[in-house]
Amino acid sequence: MTSIDLRVTGMTCGGCENAVKRALQQLPGVESVTASHAANRVAVTFDSAKVDRTQLTATIETLGYRVAT
Amino acid sequence: MTSIDLRVTGMTCGGCENAVKRALQQLPGVESVTASHAANRVAVTFDSAKVDRTQLTATIETLGYRVAT
Repeated sequence: MTSIDLRVTGMTCGGCENAVKRALQQLPGVESVTASHAANRVAVTFDSAKVDRTQLTATIETLGYRVAT
Repeated sequence: MTSIDLRVTGMTCGGCENAVKRALQQLPGVESVTASHAANRVAVTFDSAKVDRTQLTATIETLGYRVAT
């Protein structure tokens, strides 16, 4: 398993955190997600054989949140 | 085009509204979406030959928001 810690802006409440978490958890290979709007962070543990950082980032950005590179 | 007005709870800020809007706009056949967390409402205009209410509802619920039936 691989873990990454993404800086994500635009989440402003617990509902936003939940939306990001649940969208990422739909992706094959995503094992766990924690999201904090207060810290502007999303941490993802995933199987790098099944999903990559680009797909994780794209999923977050599809919902209108921004991922810093 | 068909329009429906869904009662959706769990959106608590503009970020939530935006996440719901953007997720719905990914679906083929969705023409326009407005969302209000204050009113607990999501209005969708869509082509009923391409997408149906069940798919719209499922997309919203995937993000952790609840749709009243």
